[in-house]
Amino acid sequence: MNDKSTETDVRAWWSTSIIDMEPGKIEFRGIPIESMIGHKSFAQMIWFMVCGTSLTDKQAALFEAALVAGVDHGPQAPSIAAARMAASCGVGLNNAMATAVNMLGDVHGGAGEQCSELYYMIAELLQDGLNLDDATATGIKSWQGKYGKIVSGFGHRFHKPTDPRAPRLLALVRDAASTGHVSGQFADIGESVANHLSKNRQLPMNIDGATAVIFCELGAPPPLARGFFCLSRSVGILAHAWEQMGEGKRNKGPMPPQFLPIYTPATESN
Amino acid sequence: MNDKSTETDVRAWWSTSIIDMEPGKIEFRGIPIESMIGHKSFAQMIWFMVCGTSLTDKQAALFEAALVAGVDHGPQAPSIAAARMAASCGVGLNNAMATAVNMLGDVHGGAGEQCSELYYMIAELLQDGLNLDDATATGIKSWQGKYGKIVSGFGHRFHKPTDPRAPRLLALVRDAASTGHVSGQFADIGESVANHLSKNRQLPMNIDGATAVIFCELGAPPPLARGFFCLSRSVGILAHAWEQMGEGKRNKGPMPPQFLPIYTPATESN
Amino acid sequence: MNDKSTETDVRAWWSTSIIDMEPGKIEFRGIPIESMIGHKSFAQMIWFMVCGTSLTDKQAALFEAALVAGVDHGPQAPSIAAARMAASCGVGLNNAMATAVNMLGDVHGGAGEQCSELYYMIAELLQDGLNLDDATATGIKSWQGKYGKIVSGFGHRFHKPTDPRAPRLLALVRDAASTGHVSGQFADIGESVANHLSKNRQLPMNIDGATAVIFCELGAPPPLARGFFCLSRSVGILAHAWEQMGEGKRNKGPMPPQFLPIYTPATESN
Amino acid sequence: MNDKSTETDVRAWWSTSIIDMEPGKIEFRGIPIESMIGHKSFAQMIWFMVCGTSLTDKQAALFEAALVAGVDHGPQAPSIAAARMAASCGVGLNNAMATAVNMLGDVHGGAGEQCSELYYMIAELLQDGLNLDDATATGIKSWQGKYGKIVSGFGHRFHKPTDPRAPRLLALVRDAASTGHVSGQFADIGESVANHLSKNRQLPMNIDGATAVIFCELGAPPPLARGFFCLSRSVGILAHAWEQMGEGKRNKGPMPPQFLPIYTPATESN
Repeated sequence: MNDKSTETDVRAWWSTSIIDMEPGKIEFRGIPIESMIGHKSFAQMIWFMVCGTSLTDKQAALFEAALVAGVDHGPQAPSIAAARMAASCGVGLNNAMATAVNMLGDVHGGAGEQCSELYYMIAELLQDGLNLDDATATGIKSWQGKYGKIVSGFGHRFHKPTDPRAPRLLALVRDAASTGHVSGQFADIGESVANHLSKNRQLPMNIDGATAVIFCELGAPPPLARGFFCLSRSVGILAHAWEQMGEGKRNKGPMPPQFLPIYTPATESN
Repeated sequence: MNDKSTETDVRAWWSTSIIDMEPGKIEFRGIPIESMIGHKSFAQMIWFMVCGTSLTDKQAALFEAALVAGVDHGPQAPSIAAARMAASCGVGLNNAMATAVNMLGDVHGGAGEQCSELYYMIAELLQDGLNLDDATATGIKSWQGKYGKIVSGFGHRFHKPTDPRAPRLLALVRDAASTGHVSGQFADIGESVANHLSKNRQLPMNIDGATAVIFCELGAPPPLARGFFCLSRSVGILAHAWEQMGEGKRNKGPMPPQFLPIYTPATESN
Repeated sequence: MNDKSTETDVRAWWSTSIIDMEPGKIEFRGIPIESMIGHKSFAQMIWFMVCGTSLTDKQAALFEAALVAGVDHGPQAPSIAAARMAASCGVGLNNAMATAVNMLGDVHGGAGEQCSELYYMIAELLQDGLNLDDATATGIKSWQGKYGKIVSGFGHRFHKPTDPRAPRLLALVRDAASTGHVSGQFADIGESVANHLSKNRQLPMNIDGATAVIFCELGAPPPLARGFFCLSRSVGILAHAWEQMGEGKRNKGPMPPQFLPIYTPATESN
Repeated sequence: MNDKSTETDVRAWWSTSIIDMEPGKIEFRGIPIESMIGHKSFAQMIWFMVCGTSLTDKQAALFEAALVAGVDHGPQAPSIAAARMAASCGVGLNNAMATAVNMLGDVHGGAGEQCSELYYMIAELLQDGLNLDDATATGIKSWQGKYGKIVSGFGHRFHKPTDPRAPRLLALVRDAASTGHVSGQFADIGESVANHLSKNRQLPMNIDGATAVIFCELGAPPPLARGFFCLSRSVGILAHAWEQMGEGKRNKGPMPPQFLPIYTPATESN
């Protein structure tokens, strides 16, 4: 192994297509940063950095709407509660934020990803020649085989009958589709899924179902639905952590200190 | 303690000014979410959620520029390296992101916060009647008493002579000041600090010094400089974690596996 | 809803069988803490807290051996590298530790869990009447259907031919089995798996395979193999984070700063 | 730069005194791992890995007592609540553990560290020739100048009058001192602090004050009081995360879902 190859081995270990740096030079995917500052919106920059392509302004507006819609759902969400509790424990804002983002797992942050998978499954069945109704039925069935009965992105434990964010997002997609900026196919698919699931009782699209429509219209791979949600929810996480820090409470627990958890001895069969 | 008060105690424990929810209703700081989706940009929403006020479009553009400027600085930054390593360890994207954000502490993510403190110190001295030169000298001295000799926000280990992001951001601030959208005071302060520090050798403003100018122009409390940086850098963190996942590597270490760390026995005096 | 029920609802939300507290009283699973301090070893306490049962001294010694064996594997492990990098970023020791533990996911920390599942599968087949050879073959096949070809707990990328920890741990299990403190069944199963996998080339048990033998001998559910590993590796994580803090380096990247990552533009097909 | 030096630079970047590895060889601080498995207790291994020295059996028993004492303080502690909430969000056990450890910051996990600093300050004053009473008074005053009025390690919000763990730990220290295994100096110092602080109202030593006595008797630097506490509390964190996973709840919030946080609009002066 000669000098050159040793150095190359080390540098190649961290090879990336995202950034190219020299002293005085920072380029992202081939474009100097200073030419993007002041020209790209933050939402456009997010898409460009993560996906490597550029959105049209109209597409970026849709993406932006999805990011805006998911910023917060209050302290009953475990992530927000954790951000506030962490903020009272003597750690930095970044640590409080990380504590919360860490909790956006399969159950708390994965619905958009799982729902995107369903939409793409159905889109593939359409491409195979099925009509929308059959593709939806088949897609749901196949998705449920993987993830279980409850379809992510539809219905809401709390917002009954309707999650106010979903119809607004869908209207924006329809509008963008009407002018050809997106195809509108995934809006059709999403609504078809909602119709199928609502045969017995109303199970309308929720925010995860609606943002998944947008992410699919824009061509994002399913795991990025979670990634984008993490960016979006980080806003509410920061807002709550910061509000909590202003209150000066120390070691904030989940409920007022006068309430003690009930001790319930484990039974033998436990 | 009666029923009502018990319930109120519990609900008040999580009292917040950020969000108000009922089934079918989500309002942030008094404004229904559906009226903001499609109208507020993501950057405007960030400011509104965290600070509780609204930025003008021109101010929002400045804020957006600061968020765009800080998205990434490559895998030599410990946070980005950690995001990529975590992404190879069999955790979710959210966990990889949290791992990295968690590292944006006082040293890795605190420069903007510390620099904002300096700017505000100098602004206060100006308000006390000192001229810019004296206020700068006094402010720097007082700041160094708290944080040490190296002034956060100026000079760059790598980008010599100039961090390409800083002058571009400053130009945008100057432009917004020329039309009265911000005061321009903190641009003056920042440049005055740079001049003072550069008496012996060039120590120009870096990205943290420049984004701090923007955050101070907009009136953000210093700790939010770190909070906003975390939001900004989360973009690069997601981009790198996602790129890494696409490579399929398992348990990516910090250097190619053929290089073993050198064992250096501790000496007695250790 | 009356007073009593409101209070009970809140307290029951955090119901637990682990701890019972009143002012001046702390009991774990019914036993006062002061009666365990000085009597239970840390390893015994771990088992008692997590599993709710007590180990005999000889069993505790085995458990202790497993905990000791896994404490560290050096800075080439992504978790250890991340702990050290975090320790240079201006966060607390607890944050550095959390950063690292967070990376012990399915790939980096899940081998013991996956291997335990295999052992229990084989044990069940034995109970169904199969002989060890057939149960092993069937178990491996069924496990590979779920997890893929590479069997967790066997072979080692680095320690060829033998991971020095595994035979030592196995010898301790055999010793404890010879005196009836554990059954020895899972040592048999583990060795049978090693034999099956080594038909073409040597694929001996590694540390995860060996600690899984111990955890199964003691009756731990598979996910606890990961939990216990996290406790064990937290020791090395703390040691490395602490050593790093003593060096005073700031923002330690993954390789010396003179080596820049190579920029490799994404191709169209990416 | 020649081949050799490039390779050395890279390997030296991760130089450590903790571990030395080659294929088939793992040594910690010069001692082969296989010679410690089955011989060192987990507590002894923790000390050896982190501090680089060996404890006598009697000293190790004290250290073990401190580790056992701090394992859990129930779901009203923000870290434990967060562990349980995270465990319901679809992340791995390691992620749930990291979420909780991350919260053991200056306020939630730093008391032992801060208290150790006080003890060492007093010990130094003793060495300078002051008597215990004066050294205690001077030490407390100087410590309060840095950290504020409330002295970490004394008094307890909940356990009034006495934290049951503290006297038990102190008795063990006294016992070890009576046989010369530790000096007993820090037990004296701790009790002297308690006496000073209790002049107006009882402010007895709590668990952090008592474990700090032990860590100081053994010579641990103050930050390790936090590090060891993180190891200790990780046990309760794992126990609670695991219990929660067994309940199968999804997205567990901080209080039962029927209780909504109260919306309190920010006033102008906010």
